[in-house]
Amino acid sequence: MNMQTKAYAAQSASSALAPFDLQRRAPGPEDVQIDILFCGVCHSDLHTARNEWKNTLYPSVPGHEIVGRVVAVGDKVRSFRVGDLAGVGCMVDSCGHCHSCEEGEEQYCENGFTGTYNGPLFGGENTYGGYSQSIVVRESFVLRVRHAEQDLASVAPLLCAGITTYSPLRHWGAGPGRRVGIVGLGGLGHMGVKIAHAMGAHVVLFTTSTRKIADGKRLGADEVCVSTDRDQMAAQANRFDFILNTVAAPHNLDDYLQLLKRDGTMTLVGAPAEPHPSPGVFNLILRRRQLAGSLIGGIRETQEMLDFCAQHDIVSDIEMIPIDYINTAYERMLKSDVKYRFVIDMASLE
Amino acid sequence: MNMQTKAYAAQSASSALAPFDLQRRAPGPEDVQIDILFCGVCHSDLHTARNEWKNTLYPSVPGHEIVGRVVAVGDKVRSFRVGDLAGVGCMVDSCGHCHSCEEGEEQYCENGFTGTYNGPLFGGENTYGGYSQSIVVRESFVLRVRHAEQDLASVAPLLCAGITTYSPLRHWGAGPGRRVGIVGLGGLGHMGVKIAHAMGAHVVLFTTSTRKIADGKRLGADEVCVSTDRDQMAAQANRFDFILNTVAAPHNLDDYLQLLKRDGTMTLVGAPAEPHPSPGVFNLILRRRQLAGSLIGGIRETQEMLDFCAQHDIVSDIEMIPIDYINTAYERMLKSDVKYRFVIDMASLE
Repeated sequence: MNMQTKAYAAQSASSALAPFDLQRRAPGPEDVQIDILFCGVCHSDLHTARNEWKNTLYPSVPGHEIVGRVVAVGDKVRSFRVGDLAGVGCMVDSCGHCHSCEEGEEQYCENGFTGTYNGPLFGGENTYGGYSQSIVVRESFVLRVRHAEQDLASVAPLLCAGITTYSPLRHWGAGPGRRVGIVGLGGLGHMGVKIAHAMGAHVVLFTTSTRKIADGKRLGADEVCVSTDRDQMAAQANRFDFILNTVAAPHNLDDYLQLLKRDGTMTLVGAPAEPHPSPGVFNLILRRRQLAGSLIGGIRETQEMLDFCAQHDIVSDIEMIPIDYINTAYERMLKSDVKYRFVIDMASLE
Repeated sequence: MNMQTKAYAAQSASSALAPFDLQRRAPGPEDVQIDILFCGVCHSDLHTARNEWKNTLYPSVPGHEIVGRVVAVGDKVRSFRVGDLAGVGCMVDSCGHCHSCEEGEEQYCENGFTGTYNGPLFGGENTYGGYSQSIVVRESFVLRVRHAEQDLASVAPLLCAGITTYSPLRHWGAGPGRRVGIVGLGGLGHMGVKIAHAMGAHVVLFTTSTRKIADGKRLGADEVCVSTDRDQMAAQANRFDFILNTVAAPHNLDDYLQLLKRDGTMTLVGAPAEPHPSPGVFNLILRRRQLAGSLIGGIRETQEMLDFCAQHDIVSDIEMIPIDYINTAYERMLKSDVKYRFVIDMASLE
């Protein structure tokens, strides 16, 4: 029997998010039912609520940085028991049999993973996300949370912002002896700085704002480079093994490609609505540099990231909000007026 | 005592190449003096002669696909004797002590290698290339030629077109079980097809011209895809481990990025005067694809390539010309009217 669940939804691209009742399926044999305690607010939530990627199904219930408590499990569930803490990230299903799924890279599922919300982006019927009281998810897409319970709200953003930065940092080998740049100090960037630092890399934060220097260092950057200062940028040229670029607004990629060593890679994790200016081919050719992209991470790697963060006492810097503040939060997020992630206290939905 | 040497030079961006006498240094203790027998005609020769990269020093003597016979060696030269066949490619010197030079990747010398012609592109006084009777080069930048002597003219283009395609194919792992695309069937592309085929990869040639299908297959392509045919392109989507893109004219890179598997790489070896349209970020992000560049190859790898080609009976398809045909050859090259490389018979300079 389906369960009525309180939520917040956008009914159209131009309407504010407002209370909405949705139905969750009764948990099947392989399902875990979770009471949502906290949900982080990702920029993708806003893109989707406002149909900025032109693929939104309405009503749209965003939210894919979910932490909560298990309240029911199906007969075949082995890894979770009632009372456990649990997390859900950007995916709730994938085909399970393609090359990428078999390698545990479900985010690159060749048949399209099912998003935690707006699922039909990649196939299937619409899915409703974490701006809600509860969610029912297949066990294999539920994450274990090993942080202390009092940190739970700050753990929520790890489920998207954390894995989106952890996965490329791991894939391209951030670690001791490696010089790693993080471009942008927002929700993603501040996680990138913390995680790259914990991995043992020499971390240089690039920011346009001189006001962020102290914060960058507090978060773990060994150096902060103000990217609008030509001399500071010139001093960083040809020195980086890897640059993680978290800036979603269109900008000149050449400014950062020039900072890579031979065989260095810059990876984009933000997707601007309008294209970046075209990067110069000579910047790639003359040092065999690479420009890449990366999308969240697989379930196995997301669990690895959560465990790594628990072990290194890493959580997100957050501002807690009630659900009825969400529309104001979106406006502030557009002005980068948040340090560094809004998290909704789902108790406010009662 | 310097030696007067006959050559062909451009005296300005707008003047045709014409006879010119230059001075070669007398060979020092580590030098090899080579009588040039054949010199390939690379598109870079034309770019430089006409100052299209805005860095040409005049008089400009192009030519960096050089084969000839050793006629003198310095006291300290150990690897070459008078009478040996020898080759010279795009570089005649580098700093020798930077990270890249120490790893045998002189083409990425961090202090700038010395080009075989127009040397100050990367530092030093002007250098004169292979459109000349003889050249004097440090032993460590001279290549051994093991092909049969009657193939010598067809070997010349290996020194640039060969290594420019061999190096990225090797670096990104072309070989058995790998699906490799070659974009464009010109001087570079036809070498890419031959070499990737000899490495054991499954080779798909992409060409705009239906007239090149038969030739592509003759050269070693397992499949030829006409890139202007949407259905043919769609059938290749998400299937490639590696794509070598040899097209220097601005074109839509997304058409090819979409053909890469997860974690696949497309590498550009052509540098257009105007930028390509900006590639879509989602094409990179959604499958963790990479866009890269690559520049010729190091001396050690150039020798490896020459030996590989000798072992596999690989040479360039050429059209032999006398030196006084060079200006006409440039015009034909601009129309892609050559299969697939002009090579100058330097005996015509007498």
